[in-house]
Amino acid sequence: MLKSVGIIAEYNPFHNGHKYQIDMAKKQTNADLAVVIMSGNWVQRGQPAILDKWTRAQMALKNGADMVIELPIKSAVQPADIFAKHAVNILTELGCNYLSFGSENPNLDFDSLKDLKLDDSNNFKDYSKSYPELIQELIKKKTGQVIDQPNDILALNYYIANRNNNNAMQLVPIKRIESQHHAKELNENSQYTSASSIRSKLINNDLGEISHYIPNMLSDNQLDNVVTWDDFWPLLKYKIITTDVDELSQIYQMSEGLQYRLKKYIVQADSFEEFLDLIKTKRYTYPRLQRLLVYTLLNWKQNDSASKEYVRILGFNKLGRSYLKQVKDNLSIPLVAKVNKNLSENELELDVTAGRLYGNVHSQEQDFGKVPIIYNF
Amino acid sequence: MLKSVGIIAEYNPFHNGHKYQIDMAKKQTNADLAVVIMSGNWVQRGQPAILDKWTRAQMALKNGADMVIELPIKSAVQPADIFAKHAVNILTELGCNYLSFGSENPNLDFDSLKDLKLDDSNNFKDYSKSYPELIQELIKKKTGQVIDQPNDILALNYYIANRNNNNAMQLVPIKRIESQHHAKELNENSQYTSASSIRSKLINNDLGEISHYIPNMLSDNQLDNVVTWDDFWPLLKYKIITTDVDELSQIYQMSEGLQYRLKKYIVQADSFEEFLDLIKTKRYTYPRLQRLLVYTLLNWKQNDSASKEYVRILGFNKLGRSYLKQVKDNLSIPLVAKVNKNLSENELELDVTAGRLYGNVHSQEQDFGKVPIIYNF
Repeated sequence: MLKSVGIIAEYNPFHNGHKYQIDMAKKQTNADLAVVIMSGNWVQRGQPAILDKWTRAQMALKNGADMVIELPIKSAVQPADIFAKHAVNILTELGCNYLSFGSENPNLDFDSLKDLKLDDSNNFKDYSKSYPELIQELIKKKTGQVIDQPNDILALNYYIANRNNNNAMQLVPIKRIESQHHAKELNENSQYTSASSIRSKLINNDLGEISHYIPNMLSDNQLDNVVTWDDFWPLLKYKIITTDVDELSQIYQMSEGLQYRLKKYIVQADSFEEFLDLIKTKRYTYPRLQRLLVYTLLNWKQNDSASKEYVRILGFNKLGRSYLKQVKDNLSIPLVAKVNKNLSENELELDVTAGRLYGNVHSQEQDFGKVPIIYNF
Repeated sequence: MLKSVGIIAEYNPFHNGHKYQIDMAKKQTNADLAVVIMSGNWVQRGQPAILDKWTRAQMALKNGADMVIELPIKSAVQPADIFAKHAVNILTELGCNYLSFGSENPNLDFDSLKDLKLDDSNNFKDYSKSYPELIQELIKKKTGQVIDQPNDILALNYYIANRNNNNAMQLVPIKRIESQHHAKELNENSQYTSASSIRSKLINNDLGEISHYIPNMLSDNQLDNVVTWDDFWPLLKYKIITTDVDELSQIYQMSEGLQYRLKKYIVQADSFEEFLDLIKTKRYTYPRLQRLLVYTLLNWKQNDSASKEYVRILGFNKLGRSYLKQVKDNLSIPLVAKVNKNLSENELELDVTAGRLYGNVHSQEQDFGKVPIIYNF
């Protein structure tokens, strides 16, 4: 029986820090293989992935991942708790023995925090602060621990989700090498830097500079098709101009009043960034608003059915294939290797729409006719 | 009391034939002035106007029109009967004494045809033919007259609409100079040519060649901002990709089944023209389908309120202003000289959306802050 360590990732894009984390996860757990569940073409903070999911999956397979599966979009473009819950559930379904993840402070006592009751709505009535800020204050008040770093927040949510699955996986935090998660500047004295700083360089097509930070680079050709929100700005503008406030209010997570802000500011803004700044308030974080704009762009409705979990294979190597054979008969959720018409009109409808939209910009079909990457056989 | 002749037009774009028609209309009726009601930025056959409404209104004012008003979009982008009805109603509201129009065969006995009953739905069950074809066959069967030219069909509808208004205006057909309405080639031996042929030249920016066919040309600068369906193709594609068949079926005039054709073929087509050819069937004419795609693009819903008539002033000269003073107290429909927030959220909502969409491509705001053109004072 092969033993596996699960990794929840976005790889936006893949870099040396990610390779380090895969290597350490395998080493610390002594697992036979690493199973990666990765966001598709739209990522958790409400942005299109800088490189498409196939390119990112291939980068991971080249650097230690043995199987890469896609986190469904209805689970991926979500706040940390929902993102974590579905990713943990799917890895649990796949029988992973361990879940390993980066953390800014792996010595935090996540285990003691996972049973904390936070959900009294009275705790969230201060409208001058964002929801994540209020959560952090509450944890500090109740436990004295400070959880204010993005990976720590995710980690806490992994513990909670895993507890809800009877602690099916053993959780293995690994200290992140660089702590400035969103630093825009490359750190030239290190082989590690933030994904944000690499994205900036990709946008400017400075491929030479970033090769220092990305292991086993793909061809320039594959790194060429960079996608950003700017590519979708004319479509978003069109969508908001042609949709009245009543119809906008039917979009998923369109809270009371936000539809009026969108309608009001869309005619003033000349770029996505400008629009985002115009609609920003203290109450809503940038990721919250960016996700809302993804929902709007995709026409994702309040009453769309909730996320259905499934195992969508993006790629594997020999070890990954053996593991898949070992576990597939025990799966209680669908296994998807190829998107067909039926799937595209049912479980995967929003994923296919999201992929088609991304593919139009990226100029490559993302789902139909695509088969899993078979790496290094 | 000033006497006026009404003209229903699109001027897409204005050319020598249009000037001839205005001159002849004034001459034959001996009216003091010509009042033109013109489609705005989207025209009857379901296309964006090649030049925006302000440019086209100015061309008309330079060439004999004394007042130009806009036919509301909900009346303009419609089959001939609805287009004619609202245009005739608004000119009647404005107290026009005459209605003059071009006709391929002005000697047809339109008056005898206007009471013909055509609306037995049993007459329209041959799905191998388009609706206009069936109408033409029916008229021929009942009266022996052949009405198969676009301006004659409009003319018949003017007679019917005018009859329904107790023949308030005297109708004055004028023989059209050139008969090949949709000819793509310029006719170099004449100063008259089709609007289609001029559009082709405008798209290729051959301004020199077309100056022969356009009286009192505007500056090259004004003729530079040419708009075609191709400009909206990425938005239409986005719209159809992100809208499911149930939601598409709520679009105005989306007959049973057409939504499936749109969804099916949108992923195959690489251009608007290709898409239009893919969805074409014998039952539906190109204009019918193009109008449907305008409705889809504008998110114009089945249950949107019907067209409200109003008088939207695009421009006038001194005579036009005097006439407006003479008639405005008798208007039973709103007079709109400037679009404000209230109008843009109510009567003019779809017009403003349509203008904004057009203006985004054309790079000039079409409604807010615009005031009527005051010509040659």
